Amino acid sequence: MKIAIDGMGGDNAPAAVVDGAIQALSEYDDVELFIAGPKEIIDLELGKYTYPKDRITVVDAKEVISPSEHPVMALRKKKDSSIVKALNLVKEGTCDAIISGGSTGAFLAGCTLIIGRVKGVERPALAPIMPGRRGNFMIVDVGANVDCKPAFLVQFAKLGKIYYQKVFNVESPSIGLINIGEEEEKGNELTKAAFKLLKAEVSINFKGNIEPRDIPTGDTNILVSDGFVGNTALKMYEGSASSILGIIKDEILKSSVISKLGILLLKPVLKSIMKKFDYKEVGGAPFLGVDGICIKAHGSSDAKAFKNSIKQTKLFYENNVLEDIRNEFSIEN
Amino acid sequence: MKIAIDGMGGDNAPAAVVDGAIQALSEYDDVELFIAGPKEIIDLELGKYTYPKDRITVVDAKEVISPSEHPVMALRKKKDSSIVKALNLVKEGTCDAIISGGSTGAFLAGCTLIIGRVKGVERPALAPIMPGRRGNFMIVDVGANVDCKPAFLVQFAKLGKIYYQKVFNVESPSIGLINIGEEEEKGNELTKAAFKLLKAEVSINFKGNIEPRDIPTGDTNILVSDGFVGNTALKMYEGSASSILGIIKDEILKSSVISKLGILLLKPVLKSIMKKFDYKEVGGAPFLGVDGICIKAHGSSDAKAFKNSIKQTKLFYENNVLEDIRNEFSIEN
Repeated sequence: MKIAIDGMGGDNAPAAVVDGAIQALSEYDDVELFIAGPKEIIDLELGKYTYPKDRITVVDAKEVISPSEHPVMALRKKKDSSIVKALNLVKEGTCDAIISGGSTGAFLAGCTLIIGRVKGVERPALAPIMPGRRGNFMIVDVGANVDCKPAFLVQFAKLGKIYYQKVFNVESPSIGLINIGEEEEKGNELTKAAFKLLKAEVSINFKGNIEPRDIPTGDTNILVSDGFVGNTALKMYEGSASSILGIIKDEILKSSVISKLGILLLKPVLKSIMKKFDYKEVGGAPFLGVDGICIKAHGSSDAKAFKNSIKQTKLFYENNVLEDIRNEFSIEN
Repeated sequence: MKIAIDGMGGDNAPAAVVDGAIQALSEYDDVELFIAGPKEIIDLELGKYTYPKDRITVVDAKEVISPSEHPVMALRKKKDSSIVKALNLVKEGTCDAIISGGSTGAFLAGCTLIIGRVKGVERPALAPIMPGRRGNFMIVDVGANVDCKPAFLVQFAKLGKIYYQKVFNVESPSIGLINIGEEEEKGNELTKAAFKLLKAEVSINFKGNIEPRDIPTGDTNILVSDGFVGNTALKMYEGSASSILGIIKDEILKSSVISKLGILLLKPVLKSIMKKFDYKEVGGAPFLGVDGICIKAHGSSDAKAFKNSIKQTKLFYENNVLEDIRNEFSIEN
């Protein structure tokens, strides 16, 4: 499998990208990597490691798109950017997948404009996988589509179902609509209309409305919503986890010696809790509905997160998720 | 000050309501309470306590509205319900405030229909106060208005400002718009338009867009949003806190004896953390913009939470919040 990587994407690029790529090479025999970025800079990073030279190709790209730039304008202007070069590798068929930790806006726009949508998919959706109390859950969409029509949410449910089914090997993943009440008649105009459509869709295991307070349990596999609400739920989860662990830290700092001894004894437990909330374990967020394997790595990804996003593209590829999406939506249209 | 209490509202009513009322009587000299509910049931609860009889009046109400009933229909049909009787005590001027832990829908509809809006307020908003890492924050609105026009959010900001200013004694509370990006041009149709209006409003200390991940820090005093997004943020915060503390519990249960000893030593710290997340400390959520002091207590309120919501109505009353809201909106129109 050949994977294109945006060598300059992310807060810790290019060092963490190259480090993660090298780690992936030794863990996975069958991947070949194409790193796009300024050749001299990427080569300098690669020079720090010993690795099979025939499995990494550097694709020279002189420019970089920053998250502060207007996505579509930047894509048009910076044809020689690492993200555009990496996207073209997938478009022209050299690579099977792309990973970027850079500007989310530029990545989503680039995937849609350069690689294109799967025929029949109206709006591709960004669908991160999050760690919950009793299992992982996926939110579709978290920001690619801030204003949605009800029918988009049915497509989000189908996209999420195929990914979850194949990658996590769950026969019939449960699907919920993020809503502010459990009853069918609750919600805003969008969710009321979407509820009816989702309920009528026999091909999915629709559980009904899920209130946000029940999302973090992980009891529902896939949550659908417009990208604004999905993004709010996702970032509120991240922010709550970080603030709560921060409060625990604050309290410990001002605690007694005896309490500090307690912390020392608890270290292995705390470590295992932190691991549970570590997005680096999961990899990145697949951008579902575009006609390629496109993974958005977290902007603050370290080497381990990049390595795991490479593992994620492998799972996407080996489980034929893209073919299943194409089949699902070609029947529909 | 005279306060009407829905004696049958909440999961633990009427026992917790009556218990909280009795506690409030001994803590606050100047409150007189009117408890609405089936007389024999409320009297039975009151019979368990010794208290100054002249400071509690039972207002007989034979019916109860449950959260599963359609709010407006139930209000029309059940004229003899505890919530309608309590609302009427405020409307006719017998009481200065109302507290209910019952059906949120019936409470909001009842306050608007029976007590009415302050002149000039288009949509009253439910505005709970939440504990954050570095201070309390308020979200306006969390569900009274699921579909909003941009101008509503400016009114929410003004309502929140007056409450926060007077009750927490903060001269110029900071106000943020819940959005999925910090930049002005980010967001959906509603937030883009609301941003412009909020920025142009000189009477408020508008800090710009606040991403949900930054809400739990408590660094921004007041967050405005439509009721759907605000409810999502609120419930995701509650759910995350509960799931994270749950994960900690799970890990501890399967941990070693040494770790369990650690927990024992940490008990005072854990207790202080739990207290930080305890909504019972804060009281209830004021329903701002209606022409009365209306506090929605949490559905699962215990006696302490009811007692604190009585304290909250006192603060609302003694700080003349309602007069200030009337003045603010009468100038506007």
